[in-house]
Amino acid sequence: MTGKTFRYEAVAFKIEESIKNLHLQPGEKIASVRKVSTELRVSLNTVFQAFAILEAKGLIYAKPKAGYFVNVPPGKLSISQQKHSLALPATVDITAMATAMMKNAKENGIVNFSILAPVNEHLPITKLNKLVTMSLYEARNDNYQYPLVDGHSGLLKQIALKTFEWPHSIDQQKILVTNGCMEAVNLCLDAITKPGDIVAVESPTYHGILQSLEQRGLRALEIGVNPQTGLCLDDLKEGLKKNKVTACVFMPSCHNPTGCAMPEANKMELVHLLGKRNIPLIEDDALGELSYQNGSLPAKAYDQFDNVLYCSSFSKTLAPGFRVGWVSAGKYHTAIEKLKYGSNMSTNGVLQDAIGKYLESGQYDKHIRKMRLTLQAQMLRYISTISASFPNGTKISVPKGGLSIWVELPPETDAFALQKAALRKGIGICPGHIFSTSDFFHHYIRINYSPLWNNSIEKAIKVLAKVLRAL
Amino acid sequence: MTGKTFRYEAVAFKIEESIKNLHLQPGEKIASVRKVSTELRVSLNTVFQAFAILEAKGLIYAKPKAGYFVNVPPGKLSISQQKHSLALPATVDITAMATAMMKNAKENGIVNFSILAPVNEHLPITKLNKLVTMSLYEARNDNYQYPLVDGHSGLLKQIALKTFEWPHSIDQQKILVTNGCMEAVNLCLDAITKPGDIVAVESPTYHGILQSLEQRGLRALEIGVNPQTGLCLDDLKEGLKKNKVTACVFMPSCHNPTGCAMPEANKMELVHLLGKRNIPLIEDDALGELSYQNGSLPAKAYDQFDNVLYCSSFSKTLAPGFRVGWVSAGKYHTAIEKLKYGSNMSTNGVLQDAIGKYLESGQYDKHIRKMRLTLQAQMLRYISTISASFPNGTKISVPKGGLSIWVELPPETDAFALQKAALRKGIGICPGHIFSTSDFFHHYIRINYSPLWNNSIEKAIKVLAKVLRAL
Repeated sequence: MTGKTFRYEAVAFKIEESIKNLHLQPGEKIASVRKVSTELRVSLNTVFQAFAILEAKGLIYAKPKAGYFVNVPPGKLSISQQKHSLALPATVDITAMATAMMKNAKENGIVNFSILAPVNEHLPITKLNKLVTMSLYEARNDNYQYPLVDGHSGLLKQIALKTFEWPHSIDQQKILVTNGCMEAVNLCLDAITKPGDIVAVESPTYHGILQSLEQRGLRALEIGVNPQTGLCLDDLKEGLKKNKVTACVFMPSCHNPTGCAMPEANKMELVHLLGKRNIPLIEDDALGELSYQNGSLPAKAYDQFDNVLYCSSFSKTLAPGFRVGWVSAGKYHTAIEKLKYGSNMSTNGVLQDAIGKYLESGQYDKHIRKMRLTLQAQMLRYISTISASFPNGTKISVPKGGLSIWVELPPETDAFALQKAALRKGIGICPGHIFSTSDFFHHYIRINYSPLWNNSIEKAIKVLAKVLRAL
Repeated sequence: MTGKTFRYEAVAFKIEESIKNLHLQPGEKIASVRKVSTELRVSLNTVFQAFAILEAKGLIYAKPKAGYFVNVPPGKLSISQQKHSLALPATVDITAMATAMMKNAKENGIVNFSILAPVNEHLPITKLNKLVTMSLYEARNDNYQYPLVDGHSGLLKQIALKTFEWPHSIDQQKILVTNGCMEAVNLCLDAITKPGDIVAVESPTYHGILQSLEQRGLRALEIGVNPQTGLCLDDLKEGLKKNKVTACVFMPSCHNPTGCAMPEANKMELVHLLGKRNIPLIEDDALGELSYQNGSLPAKAYDQFDNVLYCSSFSKTLAPGFRVGWVSAGKYHTAIEKLKYGSNMSTNGVLQDAIGKYLESGQYDKHIRKMRLTLQAQMLRYISTISASFPNGTKISVPKGGLSIWVELPPETDAFALQKAALRKGIGICPGHIFSTSDFFHHYIRINYSPLWNNSIEKAIKVLAKVLRAL
């Protein structure tokens, strides 16, 4: 260790001590570089280096133009990684449970940690209302007539523009607007698979995907997910060797439920791996815009093989209730166009027109940046309170984006029982069972951290902790 | 023949003569009962009786509170009825043709007789715009959040109320809102059938239904349709005897493309026939509200067996572009709820809320009554011009409701060739081929008569006649 490195380490240690002494909580801002430099009488460069060390250790994180903030203690970052398994999804009745959750969440007084949706406070409602109204009153009123199968040309153009800086951007002619991201994924599955086929998914994975496999008589090959680096590529390779896999459905950038993300290099390797083998990758990127990682791109951005069927939506960023998503399926575009027309002809014109206008206004990027910062701060608040109040043995994976925290409870916990007990206290959570066809996650829960932090939310989490302890 | 009857006949004959001499065209109003009574110096009752005779002969028709109008000459009412056949829909690529038609119709300058949609002039756009805006600005803004799977409770209630006077009305708890009527039909097929099953459909039938069967690997058993009485029940009985039919998809009230309708007694018999055999009837009633027959009800209204899966929409009456339909599937409701959630979670909240508000306002019934009268007058104008300008051998079936006229051209005509040639002249029509898996209808075309009658429309029909003669 050189003298300089030693000095940086020493300063880093002092800063770490002072964070502890001041009882700074995750999400709270720490002193500025200049202030630390003055107080500790070291150069600005030394402080920068010390902050870099703390950042690398995961103790703090930087927000552009805002400074450094306290991260979650790394001891909580140790959710165990599961091995893959092959099973029929039909053994779990995910649908019945999901629809029931939906109904519960709409009931009055339920603190809704169960549905993965941004609450209204995150959404640009005033602006969108104006634009919907504008779409309605436009001279030709073409939005009252059947929209084209592919979608409103204004929106298609804006979606294509969003991908302009990707290494492999998307052609406007190869985009089709859907009723949300799940419809996009379903259209891809219908275009590619037939009953009995094996489809690789992450373990855990979004229950909606398992549900889609179930309805189509497809078999799920579950591939383990690493809380730090997302999908385990070695497990995938092993799985592909042992099974005839027809397609993959993965969430490389903002994984639901864990919030983990693949490093960009891994995404590239994934695209290459599947491209070379001609196994289509259906990429569910519904949450991708909400990544906290700078420079995060979807796998589709690296797709030189025309092998990625990219699915996304505005449900997590603008309006869950508008049901506007899209798919860019490359060489499968024509097949998907036919399936969409046969399924429900086209997506409603008014709302997609309004979203197109919002993107065109240039406010979308700013909105997303703001939303990410708010959500990241929310996430740290939630994690801090869960860490402090939940029993020993609770482990939390700090999300790299998205809307949910994936909490591993002590192994003897039954998340279903917790869900039922919590509901009686007016709190909705999502039990881990429904994110896999196996029983790996019976002691996990998913918490949606979008409800704005306040005393009621804090109280609800503490009540949840109490219910958990009482089980 | 008694003296009185003879007198009525004589007066009827005189009125018929005067219609001919005055060159009154189909859809034109004839002199009032009082005026005829004065002119012919006969009693009001005699004139009434004479009008009844002319009405029975199909020469005139009555509009409530508006008087009597000239009907289409009965000689044109002789479209031949087809026998049923069993075939795989896969042999016709309906999807490619339908999506192309959609795109053509959106292009500027095309006179659109091809897409079955009401033009804006028929729609209560101003009022609906206000209600959508109201839905957007409501205090809770719940419409930005994921709607419940079944739909917006306000709309569900209004739909249930619409059926209040049916012999067997629909329970609000058994209604689910869909993205249009085709999604409703598809959900029903998914709930009931598996690949390889036989599904009975009308011949001809709406191409979307054939497309849905094709996508699901289902086989179509085509049952003949009578231009006067709709679905031929004897053919159906024969078909059911010879084949193991899993489900039926029929349009008993306003058949697309022919516009024919089953008498209420036949609908009751149909419900009984299938109910007793436990063969579910998927009723596509998208056009049902546009029936010109007083007292026309859907088959579902007579369903004492809980065996009819009723599908309808607001696409033909309020806003094709809103994509709001619904299904009431009785004992299959839970299965369909799961399928809908898995497919796209729910239908957008804003537009269904607005439609619910429109129904609640009480203006819907008045709007429908007005729309029917306008459409009926349109239909007669169109038929009159087609009759006069198309070559000999052309036969027209006068619709009992809906939006389309089904025209039988001379047998040697290829409707595909006509479609292509017409498109070059800027006119879109729908060729008969796509309404069947067989080649029965290669010399038929479907004409959407919703575009408001004016010189351009008249000219377009005459150009179409010219193109047809030149083939």
